[in-house]
Amino acid sequence: MFQAEIDVMPKKEILDPQGKAVTGSMKNLGLAEIQNIRIGKHISLQIEADSAEVAHEKVELACKNLLANLIMESYTFKLEQL
Amino acid sequence: MFQAEIDVMPKKEILDPQGKAVTGSMKNLGLAEIQNIRIGKHISLQIEADSAEVAHEKVELACKNLLANLIMESYTFKLEQL
Repeated sequence: MFQAEIDVMPKKEILDPQGKAVTGSMKNLGLAEIQNIRIGKHISLQIEADSAEVAHEKVELACKNLLANLIMESYTFKLEQL
Repeated sequence: MFQAEIDVMPKKEILDPQGKAVTGSMKNLGLAEIQNIRIGKHISLQIEADSAEVAHEKVELACKNLLANLIMESYTFKLEQL
C-alpha cells in the first residue's frame, strides 16, 4: 500500500484569479508582505500496488486522466510506502 | 524573501464529498486500486520577511485568518528561503 500526496497547480502562464483575489485580501488583513499567491488542489490518496513503480504509474494515469487538466494545470506528487 | 507551500485539507472526521466522488470515478477509469481520496487546497505564496521566524508567524496568521476554515480544515506548510 502506498500513500500519494499530489499537488495540482495552475500553470505559470495561466492567470489565477482566485490567487489574485486572495493576494488582495492579504493587504486588507495587514499582511501586505505576502505576495504571488497561487491556489491549486492538494489530493491525498492510497494505492494498492505491488511495487513503487506500479504505484507511480497508477498515480500518473489518475493525474493525467482525472485529477489535472493538463491544458491549464501541472501536477507533482510524492509517493510513500505505508 | 521566503516561499511557502501550504496544504489545507478537510479534517479526518469531516466527510469529503468531492474526494468520495472522485474515488468512485477512479473505478470507472479502471483504477480501483486507488482509494481514500481526499481533496483540499494547495497554496503557494511568497513572503517578504527578515527571518524565518517572522515568515513562519505571517504564514500562520494568513492560514488562521484567511486560507483555512479551522472548523473543517487543517493546514500544514513548508517554508523555504529564496
